[in-house]
Amino acid sequence: MLRSLSSYMAERRELVEDALERFLPEPGGRYSRLTDAMRYSVFSGGKRLRPILAIAAFEIVGGEGDAMLVPACATELIHTYSLIHDDLPAMDDDDLRRGRPTCHREFDDALAILAGDALLTLAFEIVTQEDVLAPERAAAIVRELAGANGYRGMLGGQAADIAMEGELPDIGAIEYIHGKKTGAPLAAAVRVGTIAAGAKSIDMERLTKYGEQIGLAFQIADDLLDETGTAEEMGKAVGKDRGRGKMTYPAVVGAESAMIRAQELVDDAIRSLDAYGERAWALTEIARFIVNRRN
Amino acid sequence: MLRSLSSYMAERRELVEDALERFLPEPGGRYSRLTDAMRYSVFSGGKRLRPILAIAAFEIVGGEGDAMLVPACATELIHTYSLIHDDLPAMDDDDLRRGRPTCHREFDDALAILAGDALLTLAFEIVTQEDVLAPERAAAIVRELAGANGYRGMLGGQAADIAMEGELPDIGAIEYIHGKKTGAPLAAAVRVGTIAAGAKSIDMERLTKYGEQIGLAFQIADDLLDETGTAEEMGKAVGKDRGRGKMTYPAVVGAESAMIRAQELVDDAIRSLDAYGERAWALTEIARFIVNRRN
Repeated sequence: MLRSLSSYMAERRELVEDALERFLPEPGGRYSRLTDAMRYSVFSGGKRLRPILAIAAFEIVGGEGDAMLVPACATELIHTYSLIHDDLPAMDDDDLRRGRPTCHREFDDALAILAGDALLTLAFEIVTQEDVLAPERAAAIVRELAGANGYRGMLGGQAADIAMEGELPDIGAIEYIHGKKTGAPLAAAVRVGTIAAGAKSIDMERLTKYGEQIGLAFQIADDLLDETGTAEEMGKAVGKDRGRGKMTYPAVVGAESAMIRAQELVDDAIRSLDAYGERAWALTEIARFIVNRRN
Repeated sequence: MLRSLSSYMAERRELVEDALERFLPEPGGRYSRLTDAMRYSVFSGGKRLRPILAIAAFEIVGGEGDAMLVPACATELIHTYSLIHDDLPAMDDDDLRRGRPTCHREFDDALAILAGDALLTLAFEIVTQEDVLAPERAAAIVRELAGANGYRGMLGGQAADIAMEGELPDIGAIEYIHGKKTGAPLAAAVRVGTIAAGAKSIDMERLTKYGEQIGLAFQIADDLLDETGTAEEMGKAVGKDRGRGKMTYPAVVGAESAMIRAQELVDDAIRSLDAYGERAWALTEIARFIVNRRN
């Protein structure tokens, strides 16, 4: 492959940054603390992995134009809200995120709660804005994002994660939690890109499988990085999960087996793209990136 | 008027309770604490004023069938989420709501944050479920709810409310905060009922005016009840707003002028329904109820 993943990601990232700038409220205004807190967390140097996945899924099924920018940005707004709430003292109590103070440390707990709420709400607002997506697609994208990030998906995984802190590690429980907490939102990012392109159900099936597998692989890689990465690389505190008795993949099966499992998942994910031939290169490279990244 | 408002409201309330029971996750299950927390707060004896407003708006413009139940329940899920987050220690720090421990007192802060998030997300999921509303109407309802309850609406009002605690009372600031915090969500409840019925833009205009005015009247009445009601009647602590230096209408203009202003708003709201003749009776009576209620 001659094209490089980093230039592919940089180009899509720029599209996403521009679109987020359009969708977020402008800085300033009479009561600007809330919008400042929203912008602070959204524009903090994230990788934009979820929007890039949405765009790459849109492209692989032949989507044209920029109809994917709205669902792509919605996945990032939802991701950002989940990080803000996750970092709160009542949850993971983290002070650092992407090398900067977390939202509640930079502002305060109340603002962080409200800013998270506002970003989640804004995600659904931008998807349904007038004259951008056909109403059928907009409604399907809302349904998809709400399902994957609600009590049956991400939030259910987070609640289970907290409920099981300190319990005996159990591989079934870990895969359940990971599948909901990380797998479902990542799969949804892929799926909403596919929906924005009006793809057929066979495409949805293939890409859903891809999304679920890279989602699990991503979380395993995250758990490994939490144990082996440095705070400088990660831009946040590391080693906290084991310290607070969180169930992680490497804690149960060991780092080496965890890495093998992540690699198997990535291989499976890539195989589910076979039918797309050359067009599969971006999603293939992203899948590999997910387990090889250093932060 | 021969029909009584209380029987009208009781009938609609029952429809809403049944529909909420269908839309909420069942109790129990492997990791049930999150869904327990969601159900605890949704089924806590609320008046269901917002859904009843949505239904009454649906009916006044000639809506038929039960297409209004989904947006009606969505307004209640959003209202419940906002109360859960509002009651958190980082926000208003309330222990009592509707005569029972608040969600974070019954469960814990983390569950309360997640349960609020899950109810907000569920609101958008039920609106966009398949084969219930036409996609155009579902998308319009999501847009409406997200706009009215987001950073330009309810959340902006809450942030301003917190930011201005302890500042010198200012009638302009209060009406700004009330308009966003309470006016916008109540007006949205009326509007989504209207959208579910496929009403014309002239109906939307009239009912929006009605909704905004009763929204302001509702908040003024709430502020008065916080000063004059008892904890037993209200099911929550009273007199806290003045104690923490919150800006309230009666604190600025006095209780008597505040009541007069609320009454004027209700009269204006009722006048905007003139065109509907007899059909306006329910929304008319609800407007009167809003300023005459004791809790």
